Amino acid sequence: MWSKIVTRRVFFKVRFCSSLVPDEPEGPCVLTDVPGPCSRKLKKDLGKDQYAGEVTLFGNYQKSIGNYLVDADDNVLLDMFSQIATLPLGYNHPELLKLFQDDKKLKTMINRPALGVFPGEDQPKRIHSLVSQIAPCLPKINLMMCGACANEQVFKNVFIAYQRKKRGQEGFTDEEKTTAVINQPPGAPNLCILSFCGGLHGRALGALASTHTKYIYKIDYPSLDWPIAYFPRYRYPLDENERENIEEDKKSLAHVEELFATYKKKETPVAGVIVEPIQGEGGNNEASALYFQELQKIIKRNNAYLVFNEIQTGGGSTGKFWCHEYFDLPVPPDAVTFSKKFAVAGYFHSDELTPDKPFRVFNTWMGDPGKVIILEAIIKVMREQDLLDNVLKVGARLKCGLVELEEEFCEIMDSVRGVGTFLAFNIANEELRDTVLHKLLRKGVVLGRCGESGLRLRPALIFQEHHADIFLDILRQVLKQCK
Amino acid sequence: MWSKIVTRRVFFKVRFCSSLVPDEPEGPCVLTDVPGPCSRKLKKDLGKDQYAGEVTLFGNYQKSIGNYLVDADDNVLLDMFSQIATLPLGYNHPELLKLFQDDKKLKTMINRPALGVFPGEDQPKRIHSLVSQIAPCLPKINLMMCGACANEQVFKNVFIAYQRKKRGQEGFTDEEKTTAVINQPPGAPNLCILSFCGGLHGRALGALASTHTKYIYKIDYPSLDWPIAYFPRYRYPLDENERENIEEDKKSLAHVEELFATYKKKETPVAGVIVEPIQGEGGNNEASALYFQELQKIIKRNNAYLVFNEIQTGGGSTGKFWCHEYFDLPVPPDAVTFSKKFAVAGYFHSDELTPDKPFRVFNTWMGDPGKVIILEAIIKVMREQDLLDNVLKVGARLKCGLVELEEEFCEIMDSVRGVGTFLAFNIANEELRDTVLHKLLRKGVVLGRCGESGLRLRPALIFQEHHADIFLDILRQVLKQCK
Repeated sequence: MWSKIVTRRVFFKVRFCSSLVPDEPEGPCVLTDVPGPCSRKLKKDLGKDQYAGEVTLFGNYQKSIGNYLVDADDNVLLDMFSQIATLPLGYNHPELLKLFQDDKKLKTMINRPALGVFPGEDQPKRIHSLVSQIAPCLPKINLMMCGACANEQVFKNVFIAYQRKKRGQEGFTDEEKTTAVINQPPGAPNLCILSFCGGLHGRALGALASTHTKYIYKIDYPSLDWPIAYFPRYRYPLDENERENIEEDKKSLAHVEELFATYKKKETPVAGVIVEPIQGEGGNNEASALYFQELQKIIKRNNAYLVFNEIQTGGGSTGKFWCHEYFDLPVPPDAVTFSKKFAVAGYFHSDELTPDKPFRVFNTWMGDPGKVIILEAIIKVMREQDLLDNVLKVGARLKCGLVELEEEFCEIMDSVRGVGTFLAFNIANEELRDTVLHKLLRKGVVLGRCGESGLRLRPALIFQEHHADIFLDILRQVLKQCK
Repeated sequence: MWSKIVTRRVFFKVRFCSSLVPDEPEGPCVLTDVPGPCSRKLKKDLGKDQYAGEVTLFGNYQKSIGNYLVDADDNVLLDMFSQIATLPLGYNHPELLKLFQDDKKLKTMINRPALGVFPGEDQPKRIHSLVSQIAPCLPKINLMMCGACANEQVFKNVFIAYQRKKRGQEGFTDEEKTTAVINQPPGAPNLCILSFCGGLHGRALGALASTHTKYIYKIDYPSLDWPIAYFPRYRYPLDENERENIEEDKKSLAHVEELFATYKKKETPVAGVIVEPIQGEGGNNEASALYFQELQKIIKRNNAYLVFNEIQTGGGSTGKFWCHEYFDLPVPPDAVTFSKKFAVAGYFHSDELTPDKPFRVFNTWMGDPGKVIILEAIIKVMREQDLLDNVLKVGARLKCGLVELEEEFCEIMDSVRGVGTFLAFNIANEELRDTVLHKLLRKGVVLGRCGESGLRLRPALIFQEHHADIFLDILRQVLKQCK
């Protein structure tokens, strides 16, 4: 089980690393309450023109640098949530700032074409370079604008492939053509995507039908009767709970099998399964490599397709470029979706999932060449600065530190989990978790919530050991106050 | 009926206008077949890494300028489709090229935050400026990344408001909370959105459930049993078919009424109606101002909400900033969605459609501040160069020219329709339409298909009278060949 590898207690020599991003401050510096008076005023202003109920604080993105988010009140915050896990290189990275000084890149960004029909002449080279550098053993890519769209569109590739297999060589019948346009079977067949409790795949209606975290994301919207399987809920530490956790795997897999059968009987067969390699917002919930190997077998036995949603796990924060690489699957998954740290969204997929006709999986923009240029630069910096290695080193240090803290504060903190810097832990209850989160913010550290009472770490890939030490020290102070 | 205004035969003095974008070529120049050998080779290359079946040709976006798309084979094409109606200022507009020379704007673009939770301190001012300049009598804005997401998310605002009205002051029940997470009523209630035959609202599954143009967009995907109303199909010229067209309005409105009743009986009430002020890809199909006034009355009587999808019609190409301004509605619609020419997507909505709690209509990025900067520049140029006025003038000239051509070539061309430069006409049949489209391309003019046998004009807002003359001349040559 890969999770074991990183739970080893490895103590590194304390050494001061110079920052990977020049001109970073030495640590957080909080001058006001957070959010401070400027942020509170700006929230009121913004609220006049758009709903602003979710705003935590306003950033000063002119001043923010590296791992440090400077807010509108000039508070300097160590950002370990990095804009909901989206900023691989932190703020104002010099390599990104200089990108569009290149006239050619600037023109590519400004002249955003409808990439599906009139791509730029540099697009094939650009796309080939992307695929050859980052594709997870899958030959084809399809670009989108956001994660929800990536997931929804890949569902369509799955449905196409599933029906093609069923239909064989025959074309569409007239009845299928006519009924498709009016949302009725057989043209709009009864098919479904299986998803998991605690999974989050986006907020468009199809993606939302496979999302099962908080009710507030879903209540009052009509949905689809799609199957929802139990996902393993591990106990920690893993090495003390091996037997129980294997039972969790079995329980989940049995439920998946059962749902395949139930929905087949309902004549709404499962065409695909979407799953996060580690559930993100749902609670940083992990399952073992063996679990995913077995899951893939079940899916294959049922002639369905496996889609990994790597929107949050992909791009390096687990210490591998794709988290599912940890699972040693005998064959690749059928598709892998991405967004967030990739600047642009989309998915890699197998040849089998390639559409057979034009305009079946299509939209006006089909991605954004300007964002692809940013992604290229991110990959270049990741390689040049060996950021995956950095993540593994820093992640191990962070995890060790967290494990020590959960021992010291065992009555209020537990279940340290995750891999690389993709880590989380639980606080005794939701209310106390929110207190800890707020106190951390007041001391200059930004984390994110996950699950019922969890806090998740989502630092940038340029988060280093000295940042980890600052964080662990502040967390210790806060836990002491909350004890 | 506004359509009448622009069918008047107004002949303008022929005058040479200098181009609104400097350095435009004098006209199209085609050196090879279109697509030429370079485009064909590039398509083969791209096809190795992504499905490329939709690619028409590859653009050289370094060389393209103003209304002229230069392709990979150095063909210079008068682009009247402007990347599926997305480019308000054409290619390489100097005002857009210089935008990110401003260090502050560059940083705003590069440091893309999660706008919902950590917006930049300049965001409230930016948003307020947008709303005060372009809002269609609606107080609130919500940004998204693409048109499909804008439509899907506004459905959620509609469902929230509809259920809130029904629920009154009471909060959610425990049963609603529990069932919402597992996609079941009452938490995921049986509600629907009414849409129209020939409407296109996007490719995500919810938007697609309200899309009814070509079967190929929908076949093989499960959908929702949502009501689909007949949309008027006018005969042209309008002034010779007034009685028949009034009957079309009535037929459609009666169907809408009937569907409201049917779906109420089915216990899946219609919460909202989404409609394009002029159907775009579905055929440039218009309906009268009176039609939309009556439609709004029906919707209000049924306690539902009216959403105009102005993704294609919005942003100036009809000669007004919003096409629905032509309808003289007694009160504003409940929401108006936008994308394409706006660089970013989203919607304006009423206070009633504002969510009551955080995270109900939310995603990671919630738009893109870099695109908002581009939109600001577009609006500035539109105002400074009075581009709405330009569209009206050029549109009238184009329409006159097209009406003359449909008289000259009445056996193969008919039904000239639309407003501003948002125009279309029909060719006798689908095959001949495709021939005309290809011949135009070979002579250096890019148009788009719409409906069964239509061709649509979607030039940029900087398309001028001398461009119109070039187009009309080439179209005449092509029609002559096809006669």
